[in-house]
Amino acid sequence: MRNKVYVTGSRPDLRVPFAEVPLSDGSAPVRLYDTSGPATPSPVRRAWIDERGPGTNVTQLHYARRGITTPEMEFAAIREGLPPALVREEIAAGRAILPANVNHPESEPMVIGSRFLVKVNANIGTSAVTSTVDEEVAKLTWATRWGADTVMDLSTGRRIRETREAILRHSAVPIGTVPLYEALEKVGGDPVKLSWEVFRDTVIEQAEQGVDYMTVHAGVRLAHVPLAAERITGIVSRGGSIMAAWCLAHHEESFLYTHFAELCEIFARYDVSFSLGDGLRPGSVADANDAAQFAELRTLGELTSIAWEHDVQVMIEGPGHVPMHKIKENVDLQQEWCHEAPFYTLGPLTTDIAPAYDHITSAIGAAMIAMYGTAMLCYVTPKEHLGLPDRDDVKAGVIAYKIAAHAADLAKGHPTAREWDDALSRARFEFRWEDQFNLSLDPETARAYHDETLPAAPAKTA
Amino acid sequence: MRNKVYVTGSRPDLRVPFAEVPLSDGSAPVRLYDTSGPATPSPVRRAWIDERGPGTNVTQLHYARRGITTPEMEFAAIREGLPPALVREEIAAGRAILPANVNHPESEPMVIGSRFLVKVNANIGTSAVTSTVDEEVAKLTWATRWGADTVMDLSTGRRIRETREAILRHSAVPIGTVPLYEALEKVGGDPVKLSWEVFRDTVIEQAEQGVDYMTVHAGVRLAHVPLAAERITGIVSRGGSIMAAWCLAHHEESFLYTHFAELCEIFARYDVSFSLGDGLRPGSVADANDAAQFAELRTLGELTSIAWEHDVQVMIEGPGHVPMHKIKENVDLQQEWCHEAPFYTLGPLTTDIAPAYDHITSAIGAAMIAMYGTAMLCYVTPKEHLGLPDRDDVKAGVIAYKIAAHAADLAKGHPTAREWDDALSRARFEFRWEDQFNLSLDPETARAYHDETLPAAPAKTA
Repeated sequence: MRNKVYVTGSRPDLRVPFAEVPLSDGSAPVRLYDTSGPATPSPVRRAWIDERGPGTNVTQLHYARRGITTPEMEFAAIREGLPPALVREEIAAGRAILPANVNHPESEPMVIGSRFLVKVNANIGTSAVTSTVDEEVAKLTWATRWGADTVMDLSTGRRIRETREAILRHSAVPIGTVPLYEALEKVGGDPVKLSWEVFRDTVIEQAEQGVDYMTVHAGVRLAHVPLAAERITGIVSRGGSIMAAWCLAHHEESFLYTHFAELCEIFARYDVSFSLGDGLRPGSVADANDAAQFAELRTLGELTSIAWEHDVQVMIEGPGHVPMHKIKENVDLQQEWCHEAPFYTLGPLTTDIAPAYDHITSAIGAAMIAMYGTAMLCYVTPKEHLGLPDRDDVKAGVIAYKIAAHAADLAKGHPTAREWDDALSRARFEFRWEDQFNLSLDPETARAYHDETLPAAPAKTA
Repeated sequence: MRNKVYVTGSRPDLRVPFAEVPLSDGSAPVRLYDTSGPATPSPVRRAWIDERGPGTNVTQLHYARRGITTPEMEFAAIREGLPPALVREEIAAGRAILPANVNHPESEPMVIGSRFLVKVNANIGTSAVTSTVDEEVAKLTWATRWGADTVMDLSTGRRIRETREAILRHSAVPIGTVPLYEALEKVGGDPVKLSWEVFRDTVIEQAEQGVDYMTVHAGVRLAHVPLAAERITGIVSRGGSIMAAWCLAHHEESFLYTHFAELCEIFARYDVSFSLGDGLRPGSVADANDAAQFAELRTLGELTSIAWEHDVQVMIEGPGHVPMHKIKENVDLQQEWCHEAPFYTLGPLTTDIAPAYDHITSAIGAAMIAMYGTAMLCYVTPKEHLGLPDRDDVKAGVIAYKIAAHAADLAKGHPTAREWDDALSRARFEFRWEDQFNLSLDPETARAYHDETLPAAPAKTA
């Protein structure tokens, strides 16, 4: 049993949700971070946005730099159990972002940065061949129920705009997209026909809808493409492949790179955060940490500085596939070259031998890279490389990544992290089974697995 | 499709199995380490054992120290793709063991040490209330099919001896036991009634049957027990609890500790290897790396030296539950205090919040601790803390641990490790789906998950 409770902040309309687990031994209930959102979507941020009024720059970074602690910052701070001033300072320094498009008032504010709890993103989205709008909204609800902190809508095919609208209006978590995918649909799927204008218009449309962060592969520069030629797995990022094809066909610098400042102006008007894409990330452990990957990373560092000149929030995407001994270097170079902007990594997978289990091959890498400082982890499901994730895959991916994120929170010593483990361990040691189940990341499965034949003595092995 | 092939060593009866995966692009097939054993059990080591003749010391360590490269060492070396002399030297130095009871001629030799491929152990065993002998033999076959390098028979209840006999006679992998469990059954389940004599006789019986390594909790000394008093989860090791209860009830030093040299003499006659148990391992991240755990570890170091004086092979068991930032210290202290004897760890679980997913919470810790030098990993299944593993759980545990072990092999740069990943990555990049499936750790599941609707383009995410 878990109860949804709210902690009220400095104003009555600032109500922060928690999942509260009562304990049978009379000790205080445990409050857990809650991403599930209200039963009915509600524009919780409407008043805060309206009070600040319109402007050409409405970003949380803009306010943070002016010393303003927004209600969003306070909300995120209460969730973390940390002072609002810390949230403001970390955002002001560029070390954290609070993705919060002014047109997505339904989102419950959260903060992404290495000083805060490690966050998990789940990808969903219709494909050209399968799934409906309702199914994708159901996946959103499902993913956030299990703890997804943000959701990326990677829909392609027909009804892409309608799907996104439904997701945004139902989502209490920030929504990310890759606008290049929709731009490509507009030009009939031919990368060569892409242009700055098509891309820009797509970005504006999505920003108007309320997308909170957008992946932009502006680091795939013309000169970087040949660096991937000798790889075992070439360019595996879809966005990276598209931009590489465009650059080579036109033999021109990427329009995302040359128009980056204009993009910043658009992002500033809505408070869209950049998720600077790693279009040249490795697609196999063999290609990890190579010249192509790191050339792009240096460019992402340059672009970070430009975004910050516009008071636009930035995080940096990272790989992908990396053997364990090369993981730390990824964080160290990202932090150095990108001036400590938050890192947001896909896995990484630590081996390529286990298709159907890449939620596990990558949870290992995700836990480690988060321990070293990655702020948000993009989940990988068991269907990675094989097919599109269904409901069970989404859950498996989110659970594996919540484990990785929490393991990293413990390793980094987040002040609120260990309370959860200790409460569960006490319940386990005292055979308070119901408390143990209720405290579990997945109470239903833990309860279902419990075998009454297990001797009432300390567990056999661990 | 995989073919079982044999590589013949320096003598015709030295035939080393591999699982060979043919590739559709005409490149050389990939040979994978094969633990599955022959279809019909066969005493492959019989002639080698007979040729060496009887003696009071027949251990691989005994021969290695005399510069003798046994057929077992050569067999293990061919499996690893490494020189036989390296296997001999590592065993001679105590940095590796080759568990091979002279009464278990059916075992295909393998080596456990940090210079070699990381190994995985799977626990099976009947309980008092469930399962039959045939079911346990089926679990053995199932576990080794998925790659278990050794199997521990933790049977309790009736028919314990019969179960062990059936497992040994069917097993091509080394078998480990915890003789204390059977000794406890002999005294009606009351730890206080245990004695050196009952324990010794049990060990001899099991050694006669052919058990290759035995967990002995000789490091749980009387003086260590109070060190666990302030823990959140006390003593969670079953063997540790039993010995602590005995020490406290008698207020005497553990008979395992005081009779350790006699135990060594028995082990030397059969070549049983010690797996020095960590009876005081932490049962929660809160208790990791504490005084109780490390006091025991120091004692295990002393006992290692005594075993080595008798030319008896030794590995050291380790935790358990350890947050990521405390994992490396476990390996460093174990290597220092136990004179580089191989480390054999259970997980460790990196967080306590996810019962039903502890194969994942612990695969993270297992991969890391193996990267730092642990030689063998004891698997954890999804049923850990909740119930007894069934067939699906055994598979889930073995697969998660093969991933962890292989990820560590890559990170440590084992010379044969990356070939497998690279072959699979090439197949993936070239859309050779059947090659990709056949190279997968679990070909059937990968094939089943493959979604024909996936666009024929680089995968969407990783």
